[in-house]
Amino acid sequence: MSVLMEIAIFPTDVGESKSRYVAEALKIIEESGYPYQLTPMATIVEAETVEELTALIPKLARKIEEMGAKRIYSVVKFDIRPGRKNRLRGKIESVERALREGPDGQRS
Amino acid sequence: MSVLMEIAIFPTDVGESKSRYVAEALKIIEESGYPYQLTPMATIVEAETVEELTALIPKLARKIEEMGAKRIYSVVKFDIRPGRKNRLRGKIESVERALREGPDGQRS
Amino acid sequence: MSVLMEIAIFPTDVGESKSRYVAEALKIIEESGYPYQLTPMATIVEAETVEELTALIPKLARKIEEMGAKRIYSVVKFDIRPGRKNRLRGKIESVERALREGPDGQRS
Amino acid sequence: MSVLMEIAIFPTDVGESKSRYVAEALKIIEESGYPYQLTPMATIVEAETVEELTALIPKLARKIEEMGAKRIYSVVKFDIRPGRKNRLRGKIESVERALREGPDGQRS
Repeated sequence: MSVLMEIAIFPTDVGESKSRYVAEALKIIEESGYPYQLTPMATIVEAETVEELTALIPKLARKIEEMGAKRIYSVVKFDIRPGRKNRLRGKIESVERALREGPDGQRS
Repeated sequence: MSVLMEIAIFPTDVGESKSRYVAEALKIIEESGYPYQLTPMATIVEAETVEELTALIPKLARKIEEMGAKRIYSVVKFDIRPGRKNRLRGKIESVERALREGPDGQRS
Repeated sequence: MSVLMEIAIFPTDVGESKSRYVAEALKIIEESGYPYQLTPMATIVEAETVEELTALIPKLARKIEEMGAKRIYSVVKFDIRPGRKNRLRGKIESVERALREGPDGQRS
Repeated sequence: MSVLMEIAIFPTDVGESKSRYVAEALKIIEESGYPYQLTPMATIVEAETVEELTALIPKLARKIEEMGAKRIYSVVKFDIRPGRKNRLRGKIESVERALREGPDGQRS
């Protein structure tokens, strides 16, 4: 199974900049060992199971709370697809292939 | 601490209607014993900790997979606020109070 | 066509409480005349077209900016279904029907 | 002003693969002329105003409907920050800077 989790998590009570908090959250994701990609709006992590990914969420929240946040917001999206692998790269390749084939091309 | 989790989870490969899947997911949330509210776009659950709520997500995904889905999508939002309680009701009451007080009223 | 839009929009640089901003945003939705439902995590609005609903978003953002916010975050979900009506109520009724019928019941 | 919009939009009634639809949506974003970045979970677009970005959403929905979808789902996030520019790159650079400076470093 391949599960992609896209997560944005940040304090909403501490001024405009959030990069200090995102950086600390990113270290926890890095240490987890799962492949990930940082985007301008979130971090995308890939694992074999939903459990592995949801276990990250409380760790990220606790870290941001320890840094002094009194209110934390998070948006998380999951794309779960049994029987697939390496979708952190594979999904973008599928779209690129569809762009070459056009709207009537075979699905992939 | 009060944590609100809003979750939408459904298969994306099985035809227009999703209510059969939402109903089965709702039973799992009901059985968890946490207070919850079903909305037209998601279900909102309240608990003391982030861990309690994230533990629900793999259970919901597994149920929908067992029902035959080959691709599952989920959007989850968290609103984490240490030191508060009963926010499933309290947040709407705060907005209603702010509506009465007007834009310059004291925050609550 | 029935389009449901669920929107959460709030400043992320102005302290813990957001209810003052949510209340002002809600007034704009109220004045739009579309049926809506306030939940503890967002507001859900129903209209005939996607255009009608997306036109609300810049109005809400501008109001919150005028109230002094220097950074605004928003999460919006759309559920678009041609040929349906009154889904603000209808979707919850479908789930309740599925709960009565059980997992093998006819879809609705 | 800089506004980032992250959008995922896809049919939920047409089988496992969504890449054909994502590719057609991406063409519309490409033609809009705004800078964008495709990620494994969404597309992020940057513009000066919220209006410019929300105007894209009905176009994407209509295209997917024309391709035959009977139910369309979309998740959109906005990060609105007056007085900033080029945040499609700038936000990731801020996080990388915070990673070098550590948790006590100056915010950027």
